Amino acid sequence: MTARQRDFSTPIDPVKLDRLAEVAVKVGLQLREGQDLLLTAPAVALPLVRRIAEHAYKAGAGLVTPLFSDEEVTLSRFRFGHGDSFDRAAHWLYQGMAKAFGANTARLAIVGDNPMLLSGEDPVKVARASKANSIAYQPALERIVNFDTNWNIIAYPSASWARQVFPEDAEDVAVAKLADAIFAASRVDSDDAVAAWDKHNAVLRERTEWLNGQRFKALQLFGDRAPTLMIGLADGHEWVGGASTAKNGITCNPNIPTEEVFTTPHCRRVYGHVVPPSRCPIRATLIDNIAVRFEEGRIVEATASRGEEVLKQGARHRRRRAPALAKWRWCRIPRRSQRAGCCSSTRCLTKMPLPTSRSASATRMLCRWWKAHARADSRRKAATRASFTSTG
Amino acid sequence: MTARQRDFSTPIDPVKLDRLAEVAVKVGLQLREGQDLLLTAPAVALPLVRRIAEHAYKAGAGLVTPLFSDEEVTLSRFRFGHGDSFDRAAHWLYQGMAKAFGANTARLAIVGDNPMLLSGEDPVKVARASKANSIAYQPALERIVNFDTNWNIIAYPSASWARQVFPEDAEDVAVAKLADAIFAASRVDSDDAVAAWDKHNAVLRERTEWLNGQRFKALQLFGDRAPTLMIGLADGHEWVGGASTAKNGITCNPNIPTEEVFTTPHCRRVYGHVVPPSRCPIRATLIDNIAVRFEEGRIVEATASRGEEVLKQGARHRRRRAPALAKWRWCRIPRRSQRAGCCSSTRCLTKMPLPTSRSASATRMLCRWWKAHARADSRRKAATRASFTSTG
Repeated sequence: MTARQRDFSTPIDPVKLDRLAEVAVKVGLQLREGQDLLLTAPAVALPLVRRIAEHAYKAGAGLVTPLFSDEEVTLSRFRFGHGDSFDRAAHWLYQGMAKAFGANTARLAIVGDNPMLLSGEDPVKVARASKANSIAYQPALERIVNFDTNWNIIAYPSASWARQVFPEDAEDVAVAKLADAIFAASRVDSDDAVAAWDKHNAVLRERTEWLNGQRFKALQLFGDRAPTLMIGLADGHEWVGGASTAKNGITCNPNIPTEEVFTTPHCRRVYGHVVPPSRCPIRATLIDNIAVRFEEGRIVEATASRGEEVLKQGARHRRRRAPALAKWRWCRIPRRSQRAGCCSSTRCLTKMPLPTSRSASATRMLCRWWKAHARADSRRKAATRASFTSTG
Repeated sequence: MTARQRDFSTPIDPVKLDRLAEVAVKVGLQLREGQDLLLTAPAVALPLVRRIAEHAYKAGAGLVTPLFSDEEVTLSRFRFGHGDSFDRAAHWLYQGMAKAFGANTARLAIVGDNPMLLSGEDPVKVARASKANSIAYQPALERIVNFDTNWNIIAYPSASWARQVFPEDAEDVAVAKLADAIFAASRVDSDDAVAAWDKHNAVLRERTEWLNGQRFKALQLFGDRAPTLMIGLADGHEWVGGASTAKNGITCNPNIPTEEVFTTPHCRRVYGHVVPPSRCPIRATLIDNIAVRFEEGRIVEATASRGEEVLKQGARHRRRRAPALAKWRWCRIPRRSQRAGCCSSTRCLTKMPLPTSRSASATRMLCRWWKAHARADSRRKAATRASFTSTG
């Protein structure tokens, strides 16, 4: 198909959707001949799943196994489920996934659920269900966190998500706008998207090489709503970003889109405050007016005017100590994203490979807050300033 | 919802669809408080899956986990997959399912795929993929065959299936007709469908009790296209049908719809011919002009003018000896089915619990052939006659 063949009866351009599938398989996963593929997706992302299956089989996939979730099935649980339901999880399924990843199956995740799906549900039930699921998912997640196999996350413009991002538009218009934003950020709006990714990976590599050459000791960040945050960097830290090589030897692009380069903070040298300027979605719940304070690398205060229980549960359930910052990432928001206006949302919903599995929830929250912060600031041109302290 | 609230903009009556979901949970599964539910379905059956999830959670389900398949993803494999793909299967997933069934998870299957889906594909690839899948599925299937947990199969009127059953109608009309046929055969066209199933189970029980009282030694069947088939019944055979009690103590209705009562043939006392009057779908492939001959309980000849390789592969791959008849079932086709005109198709696509796991494929084929035979005969009022030889 060419761009000229676009069927305007659908808000999602099928040519670009097909290119996104191709990029996921050829760039995101670098799927190898004979490799199986395990794919998770919202049920509404079926059109993208079908395109991915075709590209995967053309690339020589052994077997493509899609696992679908559905927002209405999820909501049924919170609305009609009895008491014990919220402590249950599909251990058998996650253990199976771990086994598949251990046998060199590649993993692709399509995100696209409404980030506010559970914001109207009982936060205690949400926290219990999330905790049970996190515990059950651990064996499979570890295979991904440890980068045992090649993996990739991409986004699909579902209607429920589009309504959240463009609440003032008709649904079709909102979906079209979100789709175009995802396609632009994912670099599938050019005819040779695979070549565009090769070029982008080269730019990110150049950036990480420069940062690694500087041997910075700490980063100091200033915002107009929060006091200073000082992030000490781990001794021997390394900046990485874009394409990475998994332990099975395959060089993949875990996040599509991605603009970030990231590194490991020092676990005892983070001081200061994080105050995001707007509501944040955490575990599909809206959290208002979050304020967090770090001392010696640990969160010592975390408050919110709404959703505080979900916020604290998230930070609490996998550790006994106060959560620490496990990763720091720095994004240059490119012109294409500013033009699209919502690509940062895409990135906010993607999950990142973490250098350590500790404090994952807290870190993801922080990443989101800082992105929201940086985005809001860039919009009003009051820049969040980052200063680099050189080790000299 | 009541029948009066039906939205005629959709070909599938949402009130009856909701009742079908309710019957699946309350009659088919008799789902217990706290019991998890594993559900398989074609992706297009999502509207029914959502209704089932709601009824299951209202009935106290622990966790509902749906697993979806998709016809286009399946076709991609046969059209674009490389050589080794056809010997692969998701062992990790089936082993997980077996683990779930072993931990008292109930199992619900929604059927609705196009029965001719793979009829245009390479029969060797189809046979290889089917063999690999059967082997991988074995641990999970054994839990079902052994009736370790409560399980149920229902049907969803997908467009691709409806087009096969009503090829001369527009798609919407075909779907509406198939939906109405499924709803009628599944007894959800009355306001109190659960009570209708209680009554129906009582009738089937009465029938099995009468048959068991007769202690028949053999059945002799005559058709106008095939010579006689003589089926000896196993010593101490038992006729069963309708509701059955699983090993976890739950009395469920594995098949919805069901009209059959069935029993165990003698493994060495089946003689004669089976010649179905029309094409038969086996492993989603059309098989033409099938003819099979039994001697001493074994199939000694099996021919077809088209799809013979798929037919023979199916009979061959799980045994070294020639296939035998593992089950015999007798259906009274009720008036409601005759009126609906295609309910037999529904039943033809359901898979039955087998008294033994041996010869499962061959038996399912035979069941389908005989049903097709009986159906065609009843249409032209040249009845297939069954004579009973009493031991008495």
